[in-house]
Amino acid sequence: MPTNKHVIGIDIGGTTTSFGIVDRHGVLICQSALPTLADQPAAVLVSRLYDAIEKMRSSLSSPVTLSGIGIGAPNANYLRGTVENPPNLNWGTSVNLVELFRQWYDLPVAVTNDANAAAIGELLFGGAKRMKHAIVITLGTGLGSGFIVNGELLYGADGFAGELGHTTVDPAGRECACGKRGCLETYASATGICRTVFELLEQRCDSSSLRKIGFKNLTSKQIYEAACEDDPVALAAFDMTARILGMKLADAVAHTSPEAIFLSGGLAAAGDLLLVPTRRYMEEFLFTPYRGKVQVLQSKLPEGSGAVLGAAALAWHEIDKIPFDSAQGTDVG
Amino acid sequence: MPTNKHVIGIDIGGTTTSFGIVDRHGVLICQSALPTLADQPAAVLVSRLYDAIEKMRSSLSSPVTLSGIGIGAPNANYLRGTVENPPNLNWGTSVNLVELFRQWYDLPVAVTNDANAAAIGELLFGGAKRMKHAIVITLGTGLGSGFIVNGELLYGADGFAGELGHTTVDPAGRECACGKRGCLETYASATGICRTVFELLEQRCDSSSLRKIGFKNLTSKQIYEAACEDDPVALAAFDMTARILGMKLADAVAHTSPEAIFLSGGLAAAGDLLLVPTRRYMEEFLFTPYRGKVQVLQSKLPEGSGAVLGAAALAWHEIDKIPFDSAQGTDVG
Repeated sequence: MPTNKHVIGIDIGGTTTSFGIVDRHGVLICQSALPTLADQPAAVLVSRLYDAIEKMRSSLSSPVTLSGIGIGAPNANYLRGTVENPPNLNWGTSVNLVELFRQWYDLPVAVTNDANAAAIGELLFGGAKRMKHAIVITLGTGLGSGFIVNGELLYGADGFAGELGHTTVDPAGRECACGKRGCLETYASATGICRTVFELLEQRCDSSSLRKIGFKNLTSKQIYEAACEDDPVALAAFDMTARILGMKLADAVAHTSPEAIFLSGGLAAAGDLLLVPTRRYMEEFLFTPYRGKVQVLQSKLPEGSGAVLGAAALAWHEIDKIPFDSAQGTDVG
Repeated sequence: MPTNKHVIGIDIGGTTTSFGIVDRHGVLICQSALPTLADQPAAVLVSRLYDAIEKMRSSLSSPVTLSGIGIGAPNANYLRGTVENPPNLNWGTSVNLVELFRQWYDLPVAVTNDANAAAIGELLFGGAKRMKHAIVITLGTGLGSGFIVNGELLYGADGFAGELGHTTVDPAGRECACGKRGCLETYASATGICRTVFELLEQRCDSSSLRKIGFKNLTSKQIYEAACEDDPVALAAFDMTARILGMKLADAVAHTSPEAIFLSGGLAAAGDLLLVPTRRYMEEFLFTPYRGKVQVLQSKLPEGSGAVLGAAALAWHEIDKIPFDSAQGTDVG
């Protein structure tokens, strides 16, 4: 049995696709990226990825044996192996990514959405090790979520469990790109906090460095930097974001009763500025039996490589489900 | 191996405790009840139940072999076997019901809360047979819920998963007995719809048969009967209840992606008056990938014996987890 078994983790985004070779312990041997070219068919991306992965493998000083491939992608369905109606990719209604990859690699291949990959990464390589029940929230352009239940990712009947971004905060609230109103991600995400700043600028009269920035130019990083300078509007925006996020995290606890909730993604990089008030508000909204029992933590996966590590973790988790004889490493490819 | 294996299902309420002998197929052989006597210690109730169960067994024309005992009780914790701070029972902070019953019966004993018992009953004997993912909502004085995930009851890290009654509809909303505001059960429950009628009577000017009834005397049954007579306030109360319930059921779908949601309990007896608008509103609030895929159904368990059948189902489910040799029926007791 080879000791150098590795998997490929791939994170497909609308602009960039990152990939890396990851060992059993979550060590990223090497990582690279290529432009997704979102207007081209999925098969073209898979072919380009094959070339890039093999180029990466051949550049290594000692050869690695591949045992599986894990992929995180928007609107991916683990149960079907598909990516369905991805918002930023011109791939049509449904593409079977598992089948496309298996044309190049005779290995176990699994696909799941980005937030589920983050959750399985947290379970295998991050802060949720040894936990049986946890929730991972990704706060990027939108809000994604992955649920660990009984030590497994929760997929539900249709493969789409864990989509907290589109739970309702206020049925008369902000328009969401999904067509509904008041979805959580219109408040608690990198774009949500920008909208919150504009709501506060309209309602309040105090001066703020954010008053000079146009709607299209404002970023959550600018709000973070303003908050670090004690800008009152920026601080209020973090407080309002934390309150709404805390309220909905309390709802999530009432559903699955996790040991911990991990925040990851761009907005979570704000650290205690978001974590501390989110914890406080969540406690206020928690039903009594849950109080003081659920941790709210920053993701323990590294910011730059978390998505690739999550996808790799999916591959290892998949391999662990296969009977030993058929899970041997292979040099195919 | 005896063919007449049976279990005892027990439903402990604040006023009445019901119990029955149930076979493997969910057939209730006989059922009885006794007053709970909520001011007395739990050990007294268990002793009285033993006497009543044995009296019932000895009255049967053919003897039954008991294989296990399942109990549904308020604030029961399956993982610990306890009932903790029950609101309507003078049992203190924590009573281990499993240990108390095992002083009388050398059998597998399991305890869970009423809504979880209803869910496991729906899974084994009701409409959720052959489903792997389902949610059961009990609409009584409060709102309880039980989640079936991967064919098992979801307990979470602390044994208290599935408490939708205290998720937040409106953080500035109605006072809840739990100390929070705007909890779902202050709107969607038998008492919640009564509060809704009074909100509507205050806001509207149209005549209604409900205007002559005092707050303490109004029941959900009266609202149902008025709605059947086309009373506009009663109809509006059902519509508002369905809208809020539908919104929060859509949230629940975004958490666990079930095949179906079952409504049970007193208010669910209103049938289509509640079911039809709840389905419509839930669809409106659902994130697109879930639309048209999740059924909202009335519980298939009989109204009068559903709680006892649910508790019995818990016993059978528990027995199924035990290796065959140790799960044999016994005549002990």
